[in-house]
Amino acid sequence: MVTLTSGKSGPRPGGRSARVQAAVHAAVNELQRESGRAALTVPMVAARAGVTPSTIYRRWGDLADLLADVAVERMRPDMEPPDTGSLAGDLQAWSEQYLDEMSSDVGRAMVRDVLAGTGQMDGQPVPCRCFEFTAAQIDVILARARQRGEPGLPTVDALMDGIVAPVIYRLLFAPAPPDLAWLRDRLHDGVAGRR
Amino acid sequence: MVTLTSGKSGPRPGGRSARVQAAVHAAVNELQRESGRAALTVPMVAARAGVTPSTIYRRWGDLADLLADVAVERMRPDMEPPDTGSLAGDLQAWSEQYLDEMSSDVGRAMVRDVLAGTGQMDGQPVPCRCFEFTAAQIDVILARARQRGEPGLPTVDALMDGIVAPVIYRLLFAPAPPDLAWLRDRLHDGVAGRR
Repeated sequence: MVTLTSGKSGPRPGGRSARVQAAVHAAVNELQRESGRAALTVPMVAARAGVTPSTIYRRWGDLADLLADVAVERMRPDMEPPDTGSLAGDLQAWSEQYLDEMSSDVGRAMVRDVLAGTGQMDGQPVPCRCFEFTAAQIDVILARARQRGEPGLPTVDALMDGIVAPVIYRLLFAPAPPDLAWLRDRLHDGVAGRR
Repeated sequence: MVTLTSGKSGPRPGGRSARVQAAVHAAVNELQRESGRAALTVPMVAARAGVTPSTIYRRWGDLADLLADVAVERMRPDMEPPDTGSLAGDLQAWSEQYLDEMSSDVGRAMVRDVLAGTGQMDGQPVPCRCFEFTAAQIDVILARARQRGEPGLPTVDALMDGIVAPVIYRLLFAPAPPDLAWLRDRLHDGVAGRR
């Protein structure tokens, strides 16, 4: 499910295209830390990355699409979900960390950037890559549970609908952000054991 | 929960402020139909509505905030959910209509416009008003079920998490849009009966 390339053309690691991408992504991240997101412009990113603005426009489209690409890369998980010895424990540990990361200012900004991008990446709308990163993490948790021989496992889709969807929906729309007590209620209500 | 005013200042119905709002909203809706959303500008909307651009900037901020305000108003339900005689029937009828409306091109554009607004309305971020419109509809359905004496009713929050959240999350992020078969599986899995 998860594709490991990034950018419109899927650069070969170490190639010129991959080096340009790494430099541009690094420039965006540095400038966001230094000056904040609102101040960013394509010429500013290009100057920091040592490329021409037209390189950026050609490859990413506009600033919103570049920010969406950078945000998706930052949402790519950099480790496997912790193994606690049971499905219930794994889901709790993973979902608490997910809620924590997505609720942070950085996490919220990433979600908004991803949704603001209108481009395609690897033939899909940008937000689908977030969906697939998350589904892949849940898949790892379920595969471990299968190996342990745990009975009555839920599907990836049931967990995306039961845990991930309400976390993100509430972060985007609800008057009060989702908190740990709310998450534990959801897990306790048996989301993990259905289907 | 649901506030019945709109715009930053909550205009008195029939007052000058309410007339300006109605004219500007109508202009946005007409121009969107005629020229498409991408072509809209604040001066164009102002000319059609018969107000000055500075009236719009002062009241709504920028174009994204104006489009968010118009989108929220279009998401305000204009009727009560149909009464089918049971909670299960009411939830199925209402959620099928909700999925249908939100999945349409117009519905998707409304959700994106609402999320792109950065302003506050009536002291809340704009997307919260969508949350509250939807929660109010579900509240009507639950109140009817209580009056009928149906046992073991879910909470509004459980239904927001179990039905509304996955519909919107999948529309925004999933590689395949949610369809009627998926929705019926969710309802059938007992979302409606859990607290």
